[in-house]
Amino acid sequence: MATNEQGYFTEENSAEVVIGRMADSTDPRIRQIMDVLTRKLHEAVKEIEPTQEEWFKAIMFLTETGHKSDEWRQEFILLSDVMGVSMLVDAINSRRPNGASENTVLGPFHVADAPELEMGANICLDDKGEPMFVHGRILDTEGNPLEGVKIDVWQANDEGFYDVQQKGIQPDFNLRGVFRTGADGRYFFKAIKPKFYPIPEDGPVGELMNALGRHCMRPAHFHYIISKDGFDTLTTHIFDPDDPYIHSDAVFGVKESLMAEFKPVDDQQAAAEHGFSGRFFDVEYDFVLARDD
Amino acid sequence: MATNEQGYFTEENSAEVVIGRMADSTDPRIRQIMDVLTRKLHEAVKEIEPTQEEWFKAIMFLTETGHKSDEWRQEFILLSDVMGVSMLVDAINSRRPNGASENTVLGPFHVADAPELEMGANICLDDKGEPMFVHGRILDTEGNPLEGVKIDVWQANDEGFYDVQQKGIQPDFNLRGVFRTGADGRYFFKAIKPKFYPIPEDGPVGELMNALGRHCMRPAHFHYIISKDGFDTLTTHIFDPDDPYIHSDAVFGVKESLMAEFKPVDDQQAAAEHGFSGRFFDVEYDFVLARDD
Repeated sequence: MATNEQGYFTEENSAEVVIGRMADSTDPRIRQIMDVLTRKLHEAVKEIEPTQEEWFKAIMFLTETGHKSDEWRQEFILLSDVMGVSMLVDAINSRRPNGASENTVLGPFHVADAPELEMGANICLDDKGEPMFVHGRILDTEGNPLEGVKIDVWQANDEGFYDVQQKGIQPDFNLRGVFRTGADGRYFFKAIKPKFYPIPEDGPVGELMNALGRHCMRPAHFHYIISKDGFDTLTTHIFDPDDPYIHSDAVFGVKESLMAEFKPVDDQQAAAEHGFSGRFFDVEYDFVLARDD
Repeated sequence: MATNEQGYFTEENSAEVVIGRMADSTDPRIRQIMDVLTRKLHEAVKEIEPTQEEWFKAIMFLTETGHKSDEWRQEFILLSDVMGVSMLVDAINSRRPNGASENTVLGPFHVADAPELEMGANICLDDKGEPMFVHGRILDTEGNPLEGVKIDVWQANDEGFYDVQQKGIQPDFNLRGVFRTGADGRYFFKAIKPKFYPIPEDGPVGELMNALGRHCMRPAHFHYIISKDGFDTLTTHIFDPDDPYIHSDAVFGVKESLMAEFKPVDDQQAAAEHGFSGRFFDVEYDFVLARDD
């Protein structure tokens, strides 16, 4: 039974009494988690001193956040994202040696079965948007090129939508592809310049953002999952440093090290080499994988 | 716009970056609340260091708690209750001068339109359970009796159910009544000995309680809302100190000062005076109201 059955609840000892109710036989990790959550929650309540009305508003906010969540929409993940919790959990779980590329959030738009393409292919299937040549190398932390690395890339189109958000409008698997590096560790493919886009704004999280005077925009980016046996899988983005929202990503995904220059190229010969008809953007970025030992 | 647009998110500065995003024009109270919640949430995550799987379990727990909530069931209030948050908010909002009766949680079973009864009436309408005589005085903090006090009382039956939980089984308004004190400040009525009962166990909160090795029981009690113009409304219970769950109320509602002896009386004459046929319980408890200035 509980270790602290005799202690009645008071304003002063509130967290200790609640924590003391856990049975000694409780799983130690659950004990630790509930110990911390209870302490921090009670500290927050004591510092805020909510009125009954404010407490009830919080209850209703959480309830509506639950009700907004279904098979297709996860409003609690969105809440975690805009509170910086998703990025914090990601940071804690992907501490890497100096020089290795940094992680960022996965996001909800990855699909597991994107087609494997030949290096150099164009992932844009509908010819919409400004053409882009994306290239670079996959290296280990000593700077050696890595062969046989799987590069899973996906991006929003020039209106800020992923294919899965516009079924029937965009072709299936538009702006997605899986590539594998050769012995030189190089990757290169054709794509289009992505655009900033909003996270879903029509729920309780959108209302909260509004109340906080925050916008719901994410700056333009490419998503990557880069993996090879023996190395820590890298889930990350690269970002356009000139994006209007680069300093205020609604979900805090931007890191200094993930900036990649989206360079406009006005060179007819270079365009022709890539099979583009005119002006295009060039982005070069090397990813560095850490060994998983 | 945001006050701290330039700071990118890192593990170290995570809370500061999220807080810094709030616009200067944000309502000051909302700013304060979100400042505290963000700091405490990030402190908790940094101390717990959840895995991605643990984070996702937390997301799903909150989602299911939302889905379990509807017009009739409020699982987030239940979560607040078992985490001691409801009692803490109640304590913060009902600090009273020494000597005044203490508040406790309202609970979900109050009904607004219980009938006003003559002092001395029996609130038990179905003759089930062990008879009880409940009496005492309503006083101010100087010990003067208070006239015209409204006493709204309700209780579970001897099986641990309120009338509203057993519509068609218990008579409407069974074990509820509203009384008003005369010049002597006295109150007295007939009732039955209440029984301990569980909070709803068939949802995510019940599962959590199970994982923590905690039971879901509330010790036997009478509920009261005691009110008079010019005084702080008292929402409270009185408890049976001999109840098996008195030291482990699932929602932490018990306070030392709210114990009232449920005294068995084996006295034929006393029983006859109250209109009881034999053994009954006698409980005497004085409530002290604080002025609301």
